[in-house]
Amino acid sequence: MAIDLYWGSGSPYAWRVLLALEFKGVPYTSHVLQFSKQEHKSPQMLALNPRGRVPVLKDGDYVVFESLAVLYYLDLKYPSPPIFGHTPEEAGVIMRVICEFQAYAEREATSIMAAVFAKTPNLPAADLTAAMHAVASEARTIEGRLSKSNWIVGESFSAADMVIFPSIQLLVRALNRPESRDLSSRFLPLATNYPALDRWIARVEALPGYERTYPPHWRDTHG
Amino acid sequence: MAIDLYWGSGSPYAWRVLLALEFKGVPYTSHVLQFSKQEHKSPQMLALNPRGRVPVLKDGDYVVFESLAVLYYLDLKYPSPPIFGHTPEEAGVIMRVICEFQAYAEREATSIMAAVFAKTPNLPAADLTAAMHAVASEARTIEGRLSKSNWIVGESFSAADMVIFPSIQLLVRALNRPESRDLSSRFLPLATNYPALDRWIARVEALPGYERTYPPHWRDTHG
Repeated sequence: MAIDLYWGSGSPYAWRVLLALEFKGVPYTSHVLQFSKQEHKSPQMLALNPRGRVPVLKDGDYVVFESLAVLYYLDLKYPSPPIFGHTPEEAGVIMRVICEFQAYAEREATSIMAAVFAKTPNLPAADLTAAMHAVASEARTIEGRLSKSNWIVGESFSAADMVIFPSIQLLVRALNRPESRDLSSRFLPLATNYPALDRWIARVEALPGYERTYPPHWRDTHG
Repeated sequence: MAIDLYWGSGSPYAWRVLLALEFKGVPYTSHVLQFSKQEHKSPQMLALNPRGRVPVLKDGDYVVFESLAVLYYLDLKYPSPPIFGHTPEEAGVIMRVICEFQAYAEREATSIMAAVFAKTPNLPAADLTAAMHAVASEARTIEGRLSKSNWIVGESFSAADMVIFPSIQLLVRALNRPESRDLSSRFLPLATNYPALDRWIARVEALPGYERTYPPHWRDTHG
């Protein structure tokens, strides 16, 4: 069956799925939608996902969306190499780390990025500081894991890495902007403050196929 | 191996795991912690989960927490009957519906419950109304599913039901309070506004072992 992936440049959720497809070596046809043209809200896309969100993966006649569900489906349908570990115990840890990231860091990271890229922060400064504090604390926990292992859980690249990596990349990109200097002072440079996380980013970037997952519009702009 | 479940009365996250254990017929020792005595923050519990949150499941020497990760682990370790479906396609839909609930309804439902039970709402009225609107809209989607099937996904009780059911029960309980009258007017009575959801609640309540999952402190109080 032929896989079609509908995604948008810079969506951390879509990036997760691209990383999974490349890691598994599953062939797919890539359809990059232009958010600026509202292509993700076209009638064709709304027919696949009524919420008009990406990524959407179509495998023959089967449609699945919500990035974690796509990863889970891909792992069951194309099991080798596994991305949720080799045992129930390892799978439980991978899913637990994903759930923790989503529950305690993801929304905060998103609000920081939204504040930076919107330029007119939609959050009071105190809330933004609190979000940065929460993200820094979760990053510290991940730093601890990566100081003991090359990957976030276990001995290989897994769904935990795939879920967390894009958000870290987007966050670092936002914090590298000049206007983020106050916010970023305790987070950047990553090599100083989170050296294991920094090495892990380089490790993911060196994976086969990584270039095909990289947000196309990031190549054209600086920062 | 012996399973120990640490939980607290009224935690929707813990309730999910209780429903899964009862459905799978896996024997477990139940440890109900008293939130009012901060038993979930005891040194013993912090050694299991540094965040001091429940549920925590201990299976022999293995510890897992975050409710979705616990459900996932249980399904891999004790596969029959399955709670994530019988095929990759069905599993993808179950996980997708869970992700959608978590992304678009759970936080809103939690904020409504917090506002009702805290009595002094921590949310501006407009935000509370927006949260209620979001929850009602997601409930409408679930109502649509349940008008075509006995269960939220597929032909049997699944992790999607287990994740969503406790939050619906807590929400209905909060909205049934006299002080929630304004907020609840378009949601309750459930039998009128969401008849399929109402029948589904009765269906879950009739499952073997349901009584053991019911929040103990709800038996002692009214409303």
